[in-house]
Amino acid sequence: MSLSRSNNHSEYPALGLSVEDAVTYPRIAIESVAPVLEEGRFAAKGVEGQRTMVSAVVFTDGHDKLAVNLRWRRLNDETWHAVPMEFLGNDHWQAPIRPEQPGKILYAIEAWRDLYASFYDELEKKYRAGVPITLELQEGEQLIRDAAQAAQPEYAVVLEQLITQMDEAHALDQRLAFFLAPETLASMREAGIRSHHQISRSYPLEVERQLAQFASWYELFPRSVTSDSSRHGTFRDVMGRLPEISRMGFDVLYFPPIHPIGRTHRKGPNNSLIASESDPGSPYAIGSPEGGHEAIHPELGSLDDFLELVRQSRAHGLEIALDFAIQCSPDHPWIEEHPGWFSWRPDGSIRHAENPPKKYEDIVNVDFYQKDAVPDLWLALRDVVLGWVERGVTLFRVDNPHTKPLPFWEWLIADIRKDHPEVIFLAEAFTKPAMMARLGKVGYSQSYTYFTWRNTKYELESYFTELNQPPWRDCYRPNFFVNTPDINPQFLHHSGRPGFLIRAALATMGSGLWGMYSGFEICESAPVPGKEEYLDSEKYEIRPRDFNAPGNIVAEISRLNLIRRQNPGLQTHLGFQGYTAWNDNILYFGKRTKDLSNFILVAISLDPHNAQEAHFDLPLWEFGLPDDAHMHGEDLMTGHTWTWYGKTQWMRIEPWHMPFGIWRIRPVA
Amino acid sequence: MSLSRSNNHSEYPALGLSVEDAVTYPRIAIESVAPVLEEGRFAAKGVEGQRTMVSAVVFTDGHDKLAVNLRWRRLNDETWHAVPMEFLGNDHWQAPIRPEQPGKILYAIEAWRDLYASFYDELEKKYRAGVPITLELQEGEQLIRDAAQAAQPEYAVVLEQLITQMDEAHALDQRLAFFLAPETLASMREAGIRSHHQISRSYPLEVERQLAQFASWYELFPRSVTSDSSRHGTFRDVMGRLPEISRMGFDVLYFPPIHPIGRTHRKGPNNSLIASESDPGSPYAIGSPEGGHEAIHPELGSLDDFLELVRQSRAHGLEIALDFAIQCSPDHPWIEEHPGWFSWRPDGSIRHAENPPKKYEDIVNVDFYQKDAVPDLWLALRDVVLGWVERGVTLFRVDNPHTKPLPFWEWLIADIRKDHPEVIFLAEAFTKPAMMARLGKVGYSQSYTYFTWRNTKYELESYFTELNQPPWRDCYRPNFFVNTPDINPQFLHHSGRPGFLIRAALATMGSGLWGMYSGFEICESAPVPGKEEYLDSEKYEIRPRDFNAPGNIVAEISRLNLIRRQNPGLQTHLGFQGYTAWNDNILYFGKRTKDLSNFILVAISLDPHNAQEAHFDLPLWEFGLPDDAHMHGEDLMTGHTWTWYGKTQWMRIEPWHMPFGIWRIRPVA
Repeated sequence: MSLSRSNNHSEYPALGLSVEDAVTYPRIAIESVAPVLEEGRFAAKGVEGQRTMVSAVVFTDGHDKLAVNLRWRRLNDETWHAVPMEFLGNDHWQAPIRPEQPGKILYAIEAWRDLYASFYDELEKKYRAGVPITLELQEGEQLIRDAAQAAQPEYAVVLEQLITQMDEAHALDQRLAFFLAPETLASMREAGIRSHHQISRSYPLEVERQLAQFASWYELFPRSVTSDSSRHGTFRDVMGRLPEISRMGFDVLYFPPIHPIGRTHRKGPNNSLIASESDPGSPYAIGSPEGGHEAIHPELGSLDDFLELVRQSRAHGLEIALDFAIQCSPDHPWIEEHPGWFSWRPDGSIRHAENPPKKYEDIVNVDFYQKDAVPDLWLALRDVVLGWVERGVTLFRVDNPHTKPLPFWEWLIADIRKDHPEVIFLAEAFTKPAMMARLGKVGYSQSYTYFTWRNTKYELESYFTELNQPPWRDCYRPNFFVNTPDINPQFLHHSGRPGFLIRAALATMGSGLWGMYSGFEICESAPVPGKEEYLDSEKYEIRPRDFNAPGNIVAEISRLNLIRRQNPGLQTHLGFQGYTAWNDNILYFGKRTKDLSNFILVAISLDPHNAQEAHFDLPLWEFGLPDDAHMHGEDLMTGHTWTWYGKTQWMRIEPWHMPFGIWRIRPVA
Repeated sequence: MSLSRSNNHSEYPALGLSVEDAVTYPRIAIESVAPVLEEGRFAAKGVEGQRTMVSAVVFTDGHDKLAVNLRWRRLNDETWHAVPMEFLGNDHWQAPIRPEQPGKILYAIEAWRDLYASFYDELEKKYRAGVPITLELQEGEQLIRDAAQAAQPEYAVVLEQLITQMDEAHALDQRLAFFLAPETLASMREAGIRSHHQISRSYPLEVERQLAQFASWYELFPRSVTSDSSRHGTFRDVMGRLPEISRMGFDVLYFPPIHPIGRTHRKGPNNSLIASESDPGSPYAIGSPEGGHEAIHPELGSLDDFLELVRQSRAHGLEIALDFAIQCSPDHPWIEEHPGWFSWRPDGSIRHAENPPKKYEDIVNVDFYQKDAVPDLWLALRDVVLGWVERGVTLFRVDNPHTKPLPFWEWLIADIRKDHPEVIFLAEAFTKPAMMARLGKVGYSQSYTYFTWRNTKYELESYFTELNQPPWRDCYRPNFFVNTPDINPQFLHHSGRPGFLIRAALATMGSGLWGMYSGFEICESAPVPGKEEYLDSEKYEIRPRDFNAPGNIVAEISRLNLIRRQNPGLQTHLGFQGYTAWNDNILYFGKRTKDLSNFILVAISLDPHNAQEAHFDLPLWEFGLPDDAHMHGEDLMTGHTWTWYGKTQWMRIEPWHMPFGIWRIRPVA
């Protein structure tokens, strides 16, 4: 296929607007292409096996018909595919891409004036109106002969056939039938002269595997997998927990850093400045004489133990996620080996991490733009990640990525994915929205969110809605962690068990991605007074737990994860729609696949203490049904089924039984 | 000022992302720059003497301080101006451009890590916390010495002074005072090393004179300025009407085409296919043996008459707008002189304008992309416009621009404005939204709108709101014509006089630009039955009128135009805000200048037949006032003044008196 003219007039013509330029400028306008991030500077996100709908506004002067194609190719394959775009009216066009494997794709919009389609339209109108059409038929013939004369080799045969058919049609009605045949129209769309052909710039789409969009993360400290806080848990101990984690329906098992822990300025219990000899230290103080980011903390086990854990996890349907925290303890080997990767002060001391006036003396940060660090540090960090990938790690939770340079992430993630497109990166950034979105743009598969601080109906509905809209929709996959070692949410401090069920339902139903830090399932919530931190935080201690403790919510979490696996509408944060329930304590929304074949209604009381009631709308209109229609309903937590009659319904939620309802609805056959 | 690095990584790096590239990629993100149209391919609109607010989202990794400048220059002047942008929080920055004359401007956003500002911030915090700062002071000294060593010549002096001051400050408190002086901070912002300096691409802004945004248009057919339909009105007759048009408060006097009218297939009264010898024909059938688009219809007068009319109009504060309708009658001289500018059919006949199956045999269209037409036709059309500009015409209402190529308009408008930035183009496009907006993008100063078809409160409020939002806000100035020779709005067919007042109020208050076609002021509304066309349309006949006919609304229109002149808040469609009035028949909104010094409330009943009443909100909150505050009110139609107490107020509108209220409000001093 020949591409006659690229739309590369992306710069304002300003002073240089000559008539010679103007007559060659694109006559067809291609606007509002989506999904596009930052003018195509970054790739929008897609998922293998799932449809990404590409849309554009395409128009030209006058009334002539346009032909519009979506063209796409895999980045590492020069073959372009062309798909006719569907005309939606009002100059809007769309066509889907459904990539079959992870990797990068480029797409573009091409358009041209389809002269035969314009002719066809006029001919048909005039014929119907009984207007003479002799001249028109001559013009149609000329369009076909002109095309044959100008044809690219690939269209020569089809045009030859058209001319043969045309020449064999002598009587007026035969000729009319030929010119008005849909086949003639279709052949000429492809083979006709592509008048004022034009193609947009190419836009990137990064396709990841499904786990990037749909996964349930379980976080634990391996050292706490022990029955006794005086005995350090190991990878072998973790193997013993795999069956129960798998049974709860999790896909990803995530560990905080597993590397040797520094001794200098080691933190004691509750972040105290003084540690005793027996305190294990924070795993975020990475590096000791035993090694740095590439090494394993000796007390956890050997590399072989780790490799065995990776293997056994896979056998249980779990993939391992590691923490990638670039900071170093003062004992990290790099400090001696590569002093040029760090910042030094006028007195020759190393610069510690600071949040003035606070100073973190157990942590030093690398400096990405020191002369000696460019590019050696960058390559070394890449090699750390690559090393773990080669050991079977396919997911990385990245600590504080917003404090490292954006170009570093853009390069590192692309570089890893060149050979390992399956690798998933989760950004642990809690900062302002622009940076949160930008980390998704530079390549992060998924991201921590503001979820833990969204509690009211207004906050939650606004936030879920916002994440369904550009730019978030195209660059940011939210992973709703209900808690983390750093976040013991205020809401849970006094909510009791129903509060944990509420937050679990919000997370599992709100996004395809959610995460839980161990202890949540037994409703741990004791805070450092007045803070949203855990008392006796596991970051500084070994914390054995009894996961069968009374009041645990293991069964409910298992059920929620099962419902997610069985319902594609719940396997993404997209497809969210808030609906009306007349009670500000009840969040009520729908999640559905685009074809409506899987349609889930979710009602979650935000009040863990009292019963709440509400009239609510059954969204019959989404199925094109009248307000008095009826639908099948099924409670996915209990399996109970019924028929709902009419649009207005009523609910009562008693948090001491179950603070939410999850209902699949189906039109009556 | 040195610009260290341009942000020209506008293409997706795709396969070529090497670490060597990545380390040079912009560390600072510059996003969401506004106003920007199509990635900067087209110029946003500004007005001379008025502020255009430029905004951007600018951020980087970590916690270091940024310095952000707006840089701008006139297109024909290489000198860049730099203005520090104001930090609004949440990574948002803004700064105004206030251009003093029409013409094109380029602007860009530059940013760098302001190392001294980060140092300053840390030093201050540590000093306040009583933390030792000896090392910090050494670091501050180093920042200044490094800057002096690297300084551009223009900063050498200021850095020398800083070093002198620093060296003279020996005692700790003196040194502290020096480093924490706001003057030191400010000097170092400019003269310090601009770490990771980066500049966005340049975005264009087209500045026009105020008449592009604020003008009242009056349209008449000069041939109808006569007391007798058998006597053709002339330019000299029009001179006689100038005082009354001026007294009504209009700025622009607009004529349909004034060129020689074709005879072949001339249309008779009410668009009939047969014209008698005495029928004047449609002025849109342009061209006869007497001349084409550059000529004057002989019955209107001579070129000297026209020039005299331009002069006299100016003396009355009026500028002349001409119609630029590119179509030709079959008698247009170009058809013989330049057959290659037209389309010809297989039988050698010329192609007429068509809307199949309808054919317009009194009209032929030029073909912009015929071989012989490129670029000769384009240049000839430009010369037509230029010729009228040289005769004193400063405004053009362009007929059906959406049926001519967009690149043609982009070139023509820019080419005319190169020497005549004062020329204003009004697009008469009634088509789909994307094209309406695009015509603004390619350079049209202002545009016809959907206003005549927006009648209900919901329609009007939605439409006015939409025009205040991107992209419309930045590319499209709506000219609300209440009627045109082609549009006799349905609403007026049975509304009586109150309906005309309603539409006049909506137009004059809704936008800085409005237009009226003569006859509106005497409430003409007789339609061709069932159509929104005027019966006995002036397009095909000479139509003398008595403008003092009983029931005329000349006084009301004059007052509305006067109110517009006296209130800057009404001199643009921007600054619209709908407010609550509890009646779906009353549109209620505010218009205000950005500084709130001119704040107008407008309530318009949309019911021309019955009284309407409503409680409504007095927007005290816009002034930061509590709900029980009071404000001065002034009725701008009557001059009546009062005090309003409290947020909730009540109104009654009786259309037989006046179907609207226009109130200026002011906080009590």
